[in-house]
Amino acid sequence: MRLTGLSAFPITPSGADGRVDLPALRRLVARLREAEVDSIGLLGSTGSYPYLTRDERRRALDAALDEAGRVPIVVGVGALRTDEALRLAQDARAAGAAAGLLAAVSYTPLTDDEVFAHFSEVARESGLPLCIYDNPATTHFRFSPDLVGRLSRVPGIVAVKSPGQESQAVAGHLADLRAVVPEGFSLGYSGDWTVTEALIAGADAWYSVVAGLFPQVGVAILRAVRAGDADEARRLDARLDPLWALFREHSSLRVMYACANLLDLCHAAPPRPILPLGEAATRRIAEVIRALDLR
Amino acid sequence: MRLTGLSAFPITPSGADGRVDLPALRRLVARLREAEVDSIGLLGSTGSYPYLTRDERRRALDAALDEAGRVPIVVGVGALRTDEALRLAQDARAAGAAAGLLAAVSYTPLTDDEVFAHFSEVARESGLPLCIYDNPATTHFRFSPDLVGRLSRVPGIVAVKSPGQESQAVAGHLADLRAVVPEGFSLGYSGDWTVTEALIAGADAWYSVVAGLFPQVGVAILRAVRAGDADEARRLDARLDPLWALFREHSSLRVMYACANLLDLCHAAPPRPILPLGEAATRRIAEVIRALDLR
Repeated sequence: MRLTGLSAFPITPSGADGRVDLPALRRLVARLREAEVDSIGLLGSTGSYPYLTRDERRRALDAALDEAGRVPIVVGVGALRTDEALRLAQDARAAGAAAGLLAAVSYTPLTDDEVFAHFSEVARESGLPLCIYDNPATTHFRFSPDLVGRLSRVPGIVAVKSPGQESQAVAGHLADLRAVVPEGFSLGYSGDWTVTEALIAGADAWYSVVAGLFPQVGVAILRAVRAGDADEARRLDARLDPLWALFREHSSLRVMYACANLLDLCHAAPPRPILPLGEAATRRIAEVIRALDLR
Repeated sequence: MRLTGLSAFPITPSGADGRVDLPALRRLVARLREAEVDSIGLLGSTGSYPYLTRDERRRALDAALDEAGRVPIVVGVGALRTDEALRLAQDARAAGAAAGLLAAVSYTPLTDDEVFAHFSEVARESGLPLCIYDNPATTHFRFSPDLVGRLSRVPGIVAVKSPGQESQAVAGHLADLRAVVPEGFSLGYSGDWTVTEALIAGADAWYSVVAGLFPQVGVAILRAVRAGDADEARRLDARLDPLWALFREHSSLRVMYACANLLDLCHAAPPRPILPLGEAATRRIAEVIRALDLR
C-alpha cells in the first residue's frame, strides 16, 4: 500500500489493569470507517502502544481490523527490544494490518547504525511494510535525512512519519527528505497544528491525532488542500487554534482522553503513570469542543 | 538501610533471547563481594533492566542475592507502567533486596505530579525502601530539587541518585538538594568521571559503572576521599582519564560489555537494538585496560 492522505490515530481505551476495552475501541474505529479516512493509525503514541502487552496489542488489532471494514490499518509495532518489535510486526502481518509503524523506542540512547540495523531486521524478517515513525518527543531519537535516505532503500520500508515542523521550515524539510528517498516513498507528518502547511507544501500523508476522534476536521482540511484551496485549508486550521493551544499545553494524548470521555464514547484514563486531566482543564476542553462544534 | 559509599553496577550478561546468563552474572557479583563494595546496584541502566522481562529480572536478582553474601543489593525496579513497577518492587522485597532503584521511565513525557504519584504509590504499596533514580539521559525526565524534596518526605523514599554534574556545579547542586531533604536522606551521584568531585564535596554515595567490573578503582578513590586526601583521590581519578574518554565516546554500558568480554568473564552482547562495539573501538579499550592495569 502507499500511505497517503489522512491517517487517523485513536486512543486505545483500556482499564487500570491494562486490558483493552474492545467495545469502546470499536466505537472509535467505527467513527473513522464512517468518515472514510484513508487509513487508521492504531496503537500509535496516542494509542499508548508501549504501555500495552503483546497480547493486548493483538486483541486491539483484531477487533479494529474487524470493525474497520475496507479502511486499511497501520499499526504501531514499536518496542524497546528488536526481537519484540519483530514479534509485534509478525503478529500485525498475520492479523492483516496493511503496514506497521515503527518508532526508535529507546532507553539507552541509540546510534544511527543501531537504528538502521533494528529497522532493517524488522522489515526483512516480518515482511510487513513499515512506516518509519520519527517521534523525538517520545523516543529521544532524531532521524537525520541521511538515515531516512538509507532506510528508504531497505525493501519493505515505504514511508516516514516526521514530527511537526515550524511553518517556515516545512518546505525545506520536505525537500531535504524528497532529495534522499526513492520515487513513491511516502513523506508524511504528525503534529496536527503544523500539518496544514506541510500538506500545502506537498506532503503525502497526515498522521493525525485530532482525526482519531474528530475525523471530519481532518477530512475537511485535506479536501481543501487537494482542491488547491490553501486559503480555505488555513481558515479551517486557524478555527481550531483553541484546540491546538490545549494540545500544546496538556499534550494531544491527554486532551483526547478527556474529549472521548466527554463524548461518552468511553470512560477511560490514560495508562498510569500518566494521569487524567483535572477538573479545570476538562472544563476548558468541554468549552472548546462545544464552541468548535466538535462531535 | 542507609545508602552510602560505593554502589557497584554490573552489566547483566544475557543471550540474544533475553535469558540472563546466571553463571556469568555470579562471576561478576563475586568480584564485587570480594572487593567489599558497600552495595551492589543490580539491574541498573548498565544492567539493562528495561530490556529484561519480570521473570528474568527475578532470576537475576535471586542469583545475585545468593552470590552477594552480606553485601546489600539495590535493584532496579523501574518500568513504564506504574503497576509493573509496583510488581517489580514487590518481587524485589520478597526476594530480599535491600532497596529498589526507581527511575521515571517514560514514553509520553511525564509531569511532576505524575512522577510524584508514581513514586509514592510504588513506595507505599511495596514497602521496599526506594532510591530515586534521576537519569535524564535515558528517561528524559528531570527531577527538580523541589520534586526531590517532596518525594524525600514520602515514607520509604530514602535516597536519590543524581546524574553527574560539572565539577564547578556539584557543590551547589548538593547544597540545593541538602536544603530540601530531611536529615539522613542519602544524596548520591552517578557519572563516574564526575563523581570524585561530588564525593569531595560531601556526597553520600557513588553509584558506579566502572566499579561494577573494576571495583578496586572505586574503592581506592573512595578510601582517599574518606581519609581526607582529596589530592590523592583526584590523582586516582585523573589516571582513569583514558577510560572516561571511552565512556563519553561510546557510553559506559557499551564499554563495560567490551571489557567484560575481554576479561573472559562473559561472552555477551548488549540487548539489541544496542550493538556491541566494533573491532577498532574494542582494540582501543583493550589497550586502555592494559595500560591502566585494570583487571
